[in-house]
Amino acid sequence: MSHTKTYNVAIVGATGAVGQKMLETLEDRNFPINELKLLSSSRSAGLKMSFKGEEKTVEEAIPESFEGIDIALFSAGGSVSKKFAPEAVKRGAVVIDNTSAFRMAEDVPLVVPEVNEEDIKLHKGIIANPNCSTIQMVAALEPIRKALGMKRIIVSTYQAVSGAGTEAAEELREQSQAFLNGEELEANILPVKGDKKHSPIAFNALPQIDVFQENGYTYEEMKMINETKKIMHMPDLSVAATCVRLPFFTSHAESVYVEIEKDGVTVEDIQNLLAHAPGIVLEDDPSTQTYPTPLSAAEKREVFVGRVRKDLDHERGFHMWVVSDNLLKGAAWNSVQIAERIVSNEWL
Amino acid sequence: MSHTKTYNVAIVGATGAVGQKMLETLEDRNFPINELKLLSSSRSAGLKMSFKGEEKTVEEAIPESFEGIDIALFSAGGSVSKKFAPEAVKRGAVVIDNTSAFRMAEDVPLVVPEVNEEDIKLHKGIIANPNCSTIQMVAALEPIRKALGMKRIIVSTYQAVSGAGTEAAEELREQSQAFLNGEELEANILPVKGDKKHSPIAFNALPQIDVFQENGYTYEEMKMINETKKIMHMPDLSVAATCVRLPFFTSHAESVYVEIEKDGVTVEDIQNLLAHAPGIVLEDDPSTQTYPTPLSAAEKREVFVGRVRKDLDHERGFHMWVVSDNLLKGAAWNSVQIAERIVSNEWL
Repeated sequence: MSHTKTYNVAIVGATGAVGQKMLETLEDRNFPINELKLLSSSRSAGLKMSFKGEEKTVEEAIPESFEGIDIALFSAGGSVSKKFAPEAVKRGAVVIDNTSAFRMAEDVPLVVPEVNEEDIKLHKGIIANPNCSTIQMVAALEPIRKALGMKRIIVSTYQAVSGAGTEAAEELREQSQAFLNGEELEANILPVKGDKKHSPIAFNALPQIDVFQENGYTYEEMKMINETKKIMHMPDLSVAATCVRLPFFTSHAESVYVEIEKDGVTVEDIQNLLAHAPGIVLEDDPSTQTYPTPLSAAEKREVFVGRVRKDLDHERGFHMWVVSDNLLKGAAWNSVQIAERIVSNEWL
Repeated sequence: MSHTKTYNVAIVGATGAVGQKMLETLEDRNFPINELKLLSSSRSAGLKMSFKGEEKTVEEAIPESFEGIDIALFSAGGSVSKKFAPEAVKRGAVVIDNTSAFRMAEDVPLVVPEVNEEDIKLHKGIIANPNCSTIQMVAALEPIRKALGMKRIIVSTYQAVSGAGTEAAEELREQSQAFLNGEELEANILPVKGDKKHSPIAFNALPQIDVFQENGYTYEEMKMINETKKIMHMPDLSVAATCVRLPFFTSHAESVYVEIEKDGVTVEDIQNLLAHAPGIVLEDDPSTQTYPTPLSAAEKREVFVGRVRKDLDHERGFHMWVVSDNLLKGAAWNSVQIAERIVSNEWL
């Protein structure tokens, strides 16, 4: 991007898994920053982080931190957003919030730029960044929906531990080494930090991401269901999700079944739509065993799609495999991307 | 089991991942054995294995190995089965074959005892043991199908490396340690030994199990689709599968969507059917975070089911999570179970 105007930007939760990626992404994208403020809880205040070769000190977030801030990127948990986002807005900042605190609020746009960029301008100070597993799915499905309509989605996820934070990633590392040494596995974080019971993730799979809801679905599953309908503006779209935590560090993968509204569509038609869609990379060639994997997608900003197949029994059914870095497109990059669109469209 | 009659039993492929489990299972179940023969390729001949505290020497399989054998359990790859199964049958043995060599042959019963035990008696010498990922799914779905009918299945799998043999398990172990050491990952076996390209499985997910077919599905996916229809005697059942290899050693997990034929069915109805079904253990209580995982199911013979949920948009749709030890119910135990039924019903 090239700009004359520059902005005062704050990152709230700068030392977390997503906060660090926000900092890196702002640098990589050469975001037009005038002043950058790194904010955190009192626990992490005083830590140093590097931005464009300069050392920055992390400060404790207080309401006054947001004086003069134009854009505040939040990723420090829902309770921090609930406490400080209104303070930032009150002081004139636009908040881009990566937590679930405001996602389903009626007056808060929930945005994946490839899908509903226009919603950004409806903001009243807060724009919500969707859940990581939702973002990559709707980004991959939007070009299909736009061209062919959409009736139904059934998704089973394969999600990386970094989605549960740096402690969860550390837990996978420690448990993996213990397992290889033939030692007992100690579980304190996953599946959900602070939930009643913890289970080993190393060399295992946990069919629970976030806490259980009254209806037997997990909160992660309900996020995928409700956020997808909101982002796509399709309250009647049928969406079902099963979310599973797996022993890898980075990138979520998804086995997605989608039912479109047109007959006569071929795998090649779907592949063509994906190959020309913004932010999507088609990696799909069975003859050369080409498909995305969590490792191949890590540290990249795009959403990768492979294994596109037509259902053998249902004319309008297609299956595919969608992979993206959960900390980038799933979090930090989508947030910075929203900030870029705000700036380039002057929607501040 | 208590028996007066005893049988001469051969294991072909005794030194493999499944063969070893067959030997253990015959011992655990106190199968009525008169003579036990351990057979293998010339490469493994001469190795010693222990059975009921006795040391047995593995012999190279030749046609004459099957003289006097009553029951031959095969698990040494399709080409070995194609070569030696007819030789065993010719000499009067009943073959229980764990490879895909004969599964779809019209005159070969494909059997999961909890589903279609009666098919065993139609055998003409060979009975096929289904693919591991198929067995646990149909075992879990049969009680539902019987009571409520079944229209459609969509499954996404989470499969252990041991399904690809002991070398694949060793590869996961070596790559995992290398990754933790910050070293390069060397991939020579997975996703498919002998295929053109190999990718790391450690801290990754590979959406390819077995080779690709002309239609873009993998052979593993087509096995799940075709075998399910055959075992359930439902050629018109709609079945779709996406099969994914994951970095754990034992047990396959499956996210299963199923559409039944009746309205008004509740989650509790499905749970009750599963709780009282043979070979199934219901582990399903969100309030205590109770659900099966690959680690919790390992070394057990049952199929474990949890996360039963009703689809939020489709009255006849249900989602569930099915886990079982791929080397036991998925292979060795299902084979020995077939042998037990043959013996107890005198279907030899």
